[in-house]
Amino acid sequence: MRALKIGLLGCGTVGQGFVRLLNEERFRDLRIRRILVRDLSKRRPGVDRSLLTTNAIEVLDDCDLVVELIGGVHSAGAYVRRALRNGCDVVTANKALLADSGRDLFAVARQSGARIGFEASVCGGIPVIRAIERGLAGDTIESITGILNGTCNYILTRIEENGADFAAALRLAQERGFAEADATLDVTGVDALQKLQILCELAFGSSHRWVRVHGIDDVRREEIEQARSRRSVIRHVASARRVPGGVELRVERRELPETHPLASVRDENNAVIVRGKAVGEMLFVGKGAGSLPTAAAVLSDVIEIASVPRAAAMVI
Amino acid sequence: MRALKIGLLGCGTVGQGFVRLLNEERFRDLRIRRILVRDLSKRRPGVDRSLLTTNAIEVLDDCDLVVELIGGVHSAGAYVRRALRNGCDVVTANKALLADSGRDLFAVARQSGARIGFEASVCGGIPVIRAIERGLAGDTIESITGILNGTCNYILTRIEENGADFAAALRLAQERGFAEADATLDVTGVDALQKLQILCELAFGSSHRWVRVHGIDDVRREEIEQARSRRSVIRHVASARRVPGGVELRVERRELPETHPLASVRDENNAVIVRGKAVGEMLFVGKGAGSLPTAAAVLSDVIEIASVPRAAAMVI
Repeated sequence: MRALKIGLLGCGTVGQGFVRLLNEERFRDLRIRRILVRDLSKRRPGVDRSLLTTNAIEVLDDCDLVVELIGGVHSAGAYVRRALRNGCDVVTANKALLADSGRDLFAVARQSGARIGFEASVCGGIPVIRAIERGLAGDTIESITGILNGTCNYILTRIEENGADFAAALRLAQERGFAEADATLDVTGVDALQKLQILCELAFGSSHRWVRVHGIDDVRREEIEQARSRRSVIRHVASARRVPGGVELRVERRELPETHPLASVRDENNAVIVRGKAVGEMLFVGKGAGSLPTAAAVLSDVIEIASVPRAAAMVI
Repeated sequence: MRALKIGLLGCGTVGQGFVRLLNEERFRDLRIRRILVRDLSKRRPGVDRSLLTTNAIEVLDDCDLVVELIGGVHSAGAYVRRALRNGCDVVTANKALLADSGRDLFAVARQSGARIGFEASVCGGIPVIRAIERGLAGDTIESITGILNGTCNYILTRIEENGADFAAALRLAQERGFAEADATLDVTGVDALQKLQILCELAFGSSHRWVRVHGIDDVRREEIEQARSRRSVIRHVASARRVPGGVELRVERRELPETHPLASVRDENNAVIVRGKAVGEMLFVGKGAGSLPTAAAVLSDVIEIASVPRAAAMVI
């Protein structure tokens, strides 16, 4: 593993988790040089305050690798683009940015020879990007079906188990840190769609896409109780499959029998079922969000970039 | 992807699946040069007979990459060692060989600069080797628990669902092609232990190991029926966890509540639960054996070797 100077953009929940994981002795060659934050005075336990700056240029222009954990599309996009143009590798957990301008950013990266790691952008700690990109490289993927948004799944299982209504379950998700103060992107299904689009780009390339999205914000407790009386559960399912002329993407509530592999996925967990022509159905389940699981996925990309010299990055 | 001349050792079920997958246009740069077989006259649909030979030297000494699908320890080991000494990369599905002399083979590979791909050696098509080696590179693995032998799981679920006894369920597994004529390695737990040892090498390195193995060959139908009456199932579980001074490996029958994630794993499927300090529990389920799933895993390693130049292979 070669030594890397890391510029960290953002130091919220995931950023602090990343700093914590990097503290281990075996990662001594991976050094955070500067950290971009908006508010210097905020409490960030375990983070060396002398690394903090509010000046993005200081972070971007003196490092080998940028870790982008700001989120959102505008500033994050500008920073990532600048880093890639500088020939700097980038690791990001930002699904919104990749769904919005992923193709463009990958084109910039190709030109400068930089790399983009994005394992953390879908399903947090579950290495599903590597599984699709590498593990199934020899296969033809037929469909992808999953629970890609932990907030929605947490809300649905709270209604199911506690008999809460949607508003109360959402408040609980916010109190427990599984939902942002503004959970619109989660509960409308937009966040799940963004993640599904990233998986589709890997699995199906740039085929034409038909999209249909329905959230969970109009779910009623009765819907879930009625499903239970039929030994079923309601899950918010994102799915993509090949159809004549392209790929069909759907994000919607589905009633699944209790025995369905996605029915047993509870709380903030995520799950993905990938169906390959040769390998058949494969299921991955794990924590889709949270500070340390997401930070571990970010770190796995950083380690891979530090371990494989640039000119040799995998080009399939 | 650079062009590769492939030497294939063995052309049984998995070998024929590999030949079939390679037929796709996108793999035109990966060409099988020679195939070592024992019996030239055997029927092998879809395999070009002019590639067959009974002379190992012809296969080994004129290729860039050797795919070893013979199985067993002795000849396979000699061939793989010779290929690695020649500086030739090797992809293998042979868990017995890796469990027996993996460290030695990796040492030979390091000396000559050759690489060894072994994704197919554990859990067939499920990319669990990549998940542990790369996806969890930033985490500390605490335990691994799984159903690693598809034959045993097929037998146990047949007893459970059909009320068959062990002998009848084993015959059924043999008729359906899920068990060899000699299923001793499967039903005694040795095969599962070999796979667990490979996963442990990745997850825990060379720590001291305590091993305890119990097969399913003495399972009685009553045991499974009694478990069912307690809303439980019997599964053959391989597990490894850190203990003071080393790692404890166990392969044994366990009674699991119906709600346990491994309880819903049926038939010839495999499953692995990896618990990481940061990512928590992660579950992988899929087809652990069979011609095409295993061949797809072999091919994923071949593609990775063809895509990443040798000098740049990942060294963590």
